[in-house]
Amino acid sequence: MPKVTEEHRLARRAQIVAAARTCVVEQGFHKTTMADVIRESGLSAGAVYGYFKSKEEIVAAIAEEALGTVDELFEKILTTEHPLTPLAALEAALNHAVSIAERPGGDVTRVAVQAWAEALHNPAILDIAGGKYLLLREHFEDVVRRAQADGTVDPDTDPKYIAQVMFGMLPGFVLQRLLIGDVTPDTYSAGLKALFRA
Amino acid sequence: MPKVTEEHRLARRAQIVAAARTCVVEQGFHKTTMADVIRESGLSAGAVYGYFKSKEEIVAAIAEEALGTVDELFEKILTTEHPLTPLAALEAALNHAVSIAERPGGDVTRVAVQAWAEALHNPAILDIAGGKYLLLREHFEDVVRRAQADGTVDPDTDPKYIAQVMFGMLPGFVLQRLLIGDVTPDTYSAGLKALFRA
Repeated sequence: MPKVTEEHRLARRAQIVAAARTCVVEQGFHKTTMADVIRESGLSAGAVYGYFKSKEEIVAAIAEEALGTVDELFEKILTTEHPLTPLAALEAALNHAVSIAERPGGDVTRVAVQAWAEALHNPAILDIAGGKYLLLREHFEDVVRRAQADGTVDPDTDPKYIAQVMFGMLPGFVLQRLLIGDVTPDTYSAGLKALFRA
Repeated sequence: MPKVTEEHRLARRAQIVAAARTCVVEQGFHKTTMADVIRESGLSAGAVYGYFKSKEEIVAAIAEEALGTVDELFEKILTTEHPLTPLAALEAALNHAVSIAERPGGDVTRVAVQAWAEALHNPAILDIAGGKYLLLREHFEDVVRRAQADGTVDPDTDPKYIAQVMFGMLPGFVLQRLLIGDVTPDTYSAGLKALFRA
């Protein structure tokens, strides 16, 4: 396929995914219909169906996008040459989560919460969520191994267990931000510092 | 109303809520219909509608039940006379979450995840979730104040911020248990101990 056509194809696909994201942020996975996505995208029904054969395929695409956004972070933080403490990595992750949520085009953390629920009854979404989150945990595990080498974390604890807890702090932050609304990276950071000193 | 009738009424209501929980654990909030709940309960349609006028009312009842289950825990742990560290409180909360999940009648943590997603687009569920979770956070705040008084936690950090982080560890534990499946209170406890020493 010539390059210009492939670029056009990817841009069209991104346009449809963005439209679907807008619908899901507003009304959730279940109430969103193909007709909603087509209307929001401004494309013809034929054009949309040319990229996604069903609502399930679109839901998988936006779930994959939403669950993968935190991934970008680790490219940055793992390349730093300074000693990388768990606290610094968590602070970077919290700030990144908020900056992703505030991007134009709809709060993808709302899509992520939808995807968690959907994963419980939809094997395709469970595969995506399980895969993305295992990858994220492995990134945290890399952070832990570095901190163990730097001497800032006990080297005798399985880095996997520490990564479980670090990764496990993010859903609760996202959820409190959406459902209660009074958490920020700064309040969390203050809480983390007090606990890590306890 | 005579006492025996009120008891009967509550038992009937509990029977319907249990039936609805079973349906939601199996197929989620959105696919569950009143007809499903009626069939599962073994009662007549008239009997079920006598307690809940709509699916929305039943969804609210099981969301309230699922989100409130962690509450029971604090009656026990806050009455202990030993110094209560954040680590001990978190370990108790994780063990309690697993024991709730394994009760007969369906894993209520699956209902809780559904309720998180539903809360984003359903003001009645948002009210329930926000209210229950604020209450839970206040319990964690009591734990923090005690630890600050015992000298195990820095007294200069706002206990609210520490409670945000402690409460915020539970959704990520529940989610990893359901989506990845390899976390247990013991692996989490090992990870927490390493981080709290970092």
